[in-house]
Amino acid sequence: MKPLERTRSLVAGLTGYTAAPAGADCFFMSRALDLAWQGAGRTEPNPLVGAVVVRDGVVVGEGYHRRCGESHAETIALDVAGTLAAGATLYASLEPCAHHGRTPPCTDRIIESGVRRVVIPALDPDERVFGMGIARLRGHGIHVESGCLEEAAIATNLGYYMRQLGIESSVTLKMAVTLDGRIASAPGRRDNVTGEASIHYAHQLRANHDAVLIGVGTAIADSPSLDCRLHPSERSPVPVVLDSRLRLPVENRWTAEGRPFIVITGPGADAARRSALERNGGRVLECGSSEDGSVDVGEAVRLLAGEGMRRILVEGGARVFSSFLSAGKWDAILAFVSPKLYGETGVPMYARREPVEPEMVAVDALRFGDDFLHRYLNRRTYAEIERRLARTDA
Amino acid sequence: MKPLERTRSLVAGLTGYTAAPAGADCFFMSRALDLAWQGAGRTEPNPLVGAVVVRDGVVVGEGYHRRCGESHAETIALDVAGTLAAGATLYASLEPCAHHGRTPPCTDRIIESGVRRVVIPALDPDERVFGMGIARLRGHGIHVESGCLEEAAIATNLGYYMRQLGIESSVTLKMAVTLDGRIASAPGRRDNVTGEASIHYAHQLRANHDAVLIGVGTAIADSPSLDCRLHPSERSPVPVVLDSRLRLPVENRWTAEGRPFIVITGPGADAARRSALERNGGRVLECGSSEDGSVDVGEAVRLLAGEGMRRILVEGGARVFSSFLSAGKWDAILAFVSPKLYGETGVPMYARREPVEPEMVAVDALRFGDDFLHRYLNRRTYAEIERRLARTDA
Repeated sequence: MKPLERTRSLVAGLTGYTAAPAGADCFFMSRALDLAWQGAGRTEPNPLVGAVVVRDGVVVGEGYHRRCGESHAETIALDVAGTLAAGATLYASLEPCAHHGRTPPCTDRIIESGVRRVVIPALDPDERVFGMGIARLRGHGIHVESGCLEEAAIATNLGYYMRQLGIESSVTLKMAVTLDGRIASAPGRRDNVTGEASIHYAHQLRANHDAVLIGVGTAIADSPSLDCRLHPSERSPVPVVLDSRLRLPVENRWTAEGRPFIVITGPGADAARRSALERNGGRVLECGSSEDGSVDVGEAVRLLAGEGMRRILVEGGARVFSSFLSAGKWDAILAFVSPKLYGETGVPMYARREPVEPEMVAVDALRFGDDFLHRYLNRRTYAEIERRLARTDA
Repeated sequence: MKPLERTRSLVAGLTGYTAAPAGADCFFMSRALDLAWQGAGRTEPNPLVGAVVVRDGVVVGEGYHRRCGESHAETIALDVAGTLAAGATLYASLEPCAHHGRTPPCTDRIIESGVRRVVIPALDPDERVFGMGIARLRGHGIHVESGCLEEAAIATNLGYYMRQLGIESSVTLKMAVTLDGRIASAPGRRDNVTGEASIHYAHQLRANHDAVLIGVGTAIADSPSLDCRLHPSERSPVPVVLDSRLRLPVENRWTAEGRPFIVITGPGADAARRSALERNGGRVLECGSSEDGSVDVGEAVRLLAGEGMRRILVEGGARVFSSFLSAGKWDAILAFVSPKLYGETGVPMYARREPVEPEMVAVDALRFGDDFLHRYLNRRTYAEIERRLARTDA
């Protein structure tokens, strides 16, 4: 089963000058990944999965995994396709399962449907599936291709891949910047940098994470809810504040809402403030400092993993982004870029003087209204996931 | 023939959360637009056109217009497809011509091929085609759909659309910025902000313009060639320098290369320097000033049109971009965004204090290596083109 075939990533494959005349596979796979995303916040511990059945270039069935315990995406899409599935191609955003879990194996349903070809982005890292889904399909004469939009699939289910592959935590930096790289039009101002469609998507993103982390400056200036009210999620992530000197107000938005939250502080934080925060529902974790006196973000991430929060979404502000970027402590960057220019009084997204070229792999750019969302993976993280996905490929 | 059907623009249609389950039309149209682009700099006065023939979801023929006087894209693609064209769909990035020009009408070739369906982004604004290509195809029972990736098609052939529709000039701002909105890592430094693939594409862009305009600061600091040496073009655009006080060295890169260039200066420029520049092959145009003492960019564009330079590519630096943006004197913005952070010592792309929200329509984002190219159209320009394209739609 090696080497896995590779398709060019979405945007390059579709429109980049250098693109080879790819087939339409990546088009339908991107549709499957779109569908997958609709389940954000409701499928855990399962990953997000979408599926599309295509016959003679026409979509005849679609589906996504709606909720843990309910039907898998492939089954829904094949049900919609009915007899049209015979001879068709199935695009699944994850390797179909070959085992009996809460639902019967998808591979059996696929074999029975008469599908002739199955396209997936990558193997399912779950030990109960890993390669066995493909093997079973191939054993029944179905042509299987893996590697189509692999980066996009990993970016969509980053936390799932990392957990299944035994990597402790995933850290995603989510930022909203203007085309001139500003996150606000002036210090202390709270602007809607991006449009409605981007904000909606950002709420889905939160639903797909365990913790949403911000700096105390942002917490004080914006008092954000950090919930996912625009998306019908079954859960909201836990708000986490990096706050080396415990400046967060003891009465705050989350205490008012009776919502648990976490404060990560530095050594020697004021004991009285700490007790007061804890009385109000906050959990205070003490963490070492980095050289510049700010919280050591690597240790902060480990502390959160210890609390069961492994999928961490970092939402700013500039100082916090800069800390994670400088420390190289991030796995994905999601940057919404809006068509505005805030000019020189605007707050820069990256607040340090020294230039950095983070080891970013560009995955794709999605459009939301007039904003673009750039998705990047950390080159090291991606290489590590690939290495682990390939470990039994011999 | 109205209203024209509309397909969602590329990136949203493919991957945005809000996307409807579009067909694969936009996938194949984006391929046709990719192909079209290969002819940059060689097709004039013809536009860039690409074509793809698809049967049962599989590409069976492709082509692009290589050079004025040679075969049209549709003919090349249909030749490749041969008998497979019967019953297939043809994606053409411009309405097929119905008249005898340097080559026979494409509509005849399409009708003869047995193609069943033709998809185009928009009508060809050329009076000899405008609507007649579609009408002739429909008269022969071929199903024609217009509106697929219209914005992307206009962005690709902006100068052509504007000229054919009687709009004097097109101004495209082309910038290369880091994710934190910087065009250089420090004042006076010349950095390769973007990667190789982006630079290559930028040379194709130049080949598709009549003039490349920069500010005198950039001309002095970088001494750029502004040619398109990385792309086999038949022509290079004319370098134009905005230089209100004639600071451009009398001996410069272009004089050394024996290449003509234009300097646009303000009122009362030094007569001796002016003569010296003109003796060295420069053409000096005098232009009014705007309020802040810089060259009036609107008048500069009109002066260039008077010299036959109607497709103007503005390449910076920050002050020049800011002038065009503040004056609203632009039709398209092409922003390459690279995965780097230059930090606070970097040179901002937008050098003014006041925030602006330019009336930008996001078209799509193309990936070049790890860079993304955002393509935007000016909302007013786009509305005006649409209005003129629709003028005989009754």
